[in-house]
Amino acid sequence: MYTLLKKDQKARRGRFITPHGTIETPVFMNVGTLGVIKGAVSSVDLEAIGCQVELSNTYHLHLRPGDKVIRKMGGLHKFMNWRGPILTDSGGFQVFSLAKMRKIKEEGVYFSSHIDGSKIFMGPEESMQIQSNIGSTIAMAFDECIELPAKREYVEQSVERTTRWLKRCKTELDRLNAQEDTLNKQQMLFGINQGGTDEDLRISHAKEISKLDLDGYAIGGLAVGETHEEMYRILDVVVPHLPEDKPIYLMGVGTPENILESVERGVDFFDCVLPARNGRHGHVFTSRGKINIMNKRFELDDQPIDVGCQCPACTHYTRSYIRHLFKAKEMLALRLCVLHNLYFYNKLMEDTRQAIDDGTFSEFKKMKLEGWARGQKPHNEDK
Amino acid sequence: MYTLLKKDQKARRGRFITPHGTIETPVFMNVGTLGVIKGAVSSVDLEAIGCQVELSNTYHLHLRPGDKVIRKMGGLHKFMNWRGPILTDSGGFQVFSLAKMRKIKEEGVYFSSHIDGSKIFMGPEESMQIQSNIGSTIAMAFDECIELPAKREYVEQSVERTTRWLKRCKTELDRLNAQEDTLNKQQMLFGINQGGTDEDLRISHAKEISKLDLDGYAIGGLAVGETHEEMYRILDVVVPHLPEDKPIYLMGVGTPENILESVERGVDFFDCVLPARNGRHGHVFTSRGKINIMNKRFELDDQPIDVGCQCPACTHYTRSYIRHLFKAKEMLALRLCVLHNLYFYNKLMEDTRQAIDDGTFSEFKKMKLEGWARGQKPHNEDK
Repeated sequence: MYTLLKKDQKARRGRFITPHGTIETPVFMNVGTLGVIKGAVSSVDLEAIGCQVELSNTYHLHLRPGDKVIRKMGGLHKFMNWRGPILTDSGGFQVFSLAKMRKIKEEGVYFSSHIDGSKIFMGPEESMQIQSNIGSTIAMAFDECIELPAKREYVEQSVERTTRWLKRCKTELDRLNAQEDTLNKQQMLFGINQGGTDEDLRISHAKEISKLDLDGYAIGGLAVGETHEEMYRILDVVVPHLPEDKPIYLMGVGTPENILESVERGVDFFDCVLPARNGRHGHVFTSRGKINIMNKRFELDDQPIDVGCQCPACTHYTRSYIRHLFKAKEMLALRLCVLHNLYFYNKLMEDTRQAIDDGTFSEFKKMKLEGWARGQKPHNEDK
Repeated sequence: MYTLLKKDQKARRGRFITPHGTIETPVFMNVGTLGVIKGAVSSVDLEAIGCQVELSNTYHLHLRPGDKVIRKMGGLHKFMNWRGPILTDSGGFQVFSLAKMRKIKEEGVYFSSHIDGSKIFMGPEESMQIQSNIGSTIAMAFDECIELPAKREYVEQSVERTTRWLKRCKTELDRLNAQEDTLNKQQMLFGINQGGTDEDLRISHAKEISKLDLDGYAIGGLAVGETHEEMYRILDVVVPHLPEDKPIYLMGVGTPENILESVERGVDFFDCVLPARNGRHGHVFTSRGKINIMNKRFELDDQPIDVGCQCPACTHYTRSYIRHLFKAKEMLALRLCVLHNLYFYNKLMEDTRQAIDDGTFSEFKKMKLEGWARGQKPHNEDK
């Protein structure tokens, strides 16, 4: 289903065919936690801003509105009226970061809902069942995302359990996909590489899961507080040990800079709440780096957020107007900035793909990084 | 500029030509207090939902971002990127309802800002200057909107002062429109009829202001707490004393029922925050009356808010999905319901115009009222 079209040094230009459409890679997935992008952005808007893949969160949808409701409504595609590919995470990350009173056992995790405290159990089979009810295009394996730093002994045990869980996920999803009344019988499964910042654990785990012939492989447990350099180091050592004929997904990453550095190291899929979250706070991306639209210096600025940008915000509204909307606490401010930031990310990936196609990725990356840095010089700093 | 195209009993089908486009009447103006519709609705959306006239508030824009900022940005049309007609109120209503420490003098009103308590003076000349800076299509005269009930003696004095203020508004707007650097030299002025619920004061004031040959006439000081029947009684007695060759605007009204009753009494222009405010609370209008989209019975409802509705919400999303968005506190919920409700109002006016054109307004009104009442029977009640 994945075709590697071209390599420019380690950067990969690929194509991933799914039952819900073709994904050109490298790609940034737009995060709609609860089946919607925060900031009043709808599935209709996603088309307008060049989104290829929508990502929703299993844990959140399980709690609200409930995966059984979504199943009854015909699956998430129909529910949110998005016909393109959808990736759902496994719920693991939220169980480990949001839920209270967590207890990890071999069978799975016992925890309390972050909304009403009710007791929930989730293991590999439960995660697969929920994702099957949601009917996403790509399901993620249920893994343990450990906190860093962690003792090597714990990381080792955790990685081994994650491998056992992955095998159970595969068995369960195969079973669900074979059932008569399953919404999406072609649901795909991505495994997740773990191992903290231990290079040898990362490598041995990558080798182990590569044997399973999954639809794709993710690198998890990064961008959780370690330095960027540590993250890049892990990518350098892990990516070569994942199958070249499968897409590689770096979970929860990141800034535009992080993405280009990771594309350079062979990553194909990305996702992050950063562009939408930044947008809701008036922090918007431009070709000259990030600016704070609430800055006084934009009060009378009749330029768009980013000159030349073709997003729905930049083609219709000025910095001055959007600043006013923020100051007046008008919701349209958030919507326009989220639309802009997601467009910025989607366009960055489009340009990245073009650069790899052209064999000019390293010049492209250098030019982009220099442009973003230029606007951030001290004399031009935003507060 | 106003042409009365057809009368169906007292209901009027008209056309009002302005420098920013033609307004087909009766019309409902969509309220964007601060140069934006609350609920993340943009000027681009206004076109999609059939808005003919946008209404903004002088008092609010004077405080944020400041009318001088708007003027520097080329006026409100350019600032909010809405090229159609804009009506601005005079600030009077907000001064009397929102501002603190109010002191009414012959020259105008001294008051404190509801935002930061700073002292502000606004009289007829100031209101005209601010509205001229905003550059709206139609400026409203600065009047006193008294609280009801009020002593007849006070109402009399207030009405006389409102007449004197109206003359000063006319003089000042003529002066401003004649100036070289005025943004919109063709800015129009509507006068406002006052007089509380005293029929003879209302009539004598209507006759008085009719002499001034203004661009249009509003009926103010209604929909402020009196019964619907009192409001209809005042309309019955006042409308015949306003010029037939000018548009008549009933300020701040109202429910769909109020609007049809008032059209029947000869009113041409309406505005109200109700559809947008209701939408933000999940109360949405349908052909069977208002429903609360958060009701449990919509959890698995795969119909649109209103079957057959062509608004951006109903053409893409189900009640079930929108209910989920509200429950999950997602901003898109508000946006979709505001878009729907404004579309509902704009479409109601379009159908009203058609009914008057066809000479079938009273049947149309009866049918609409019956339809709205049908969904509100006890067995079908919403909480």
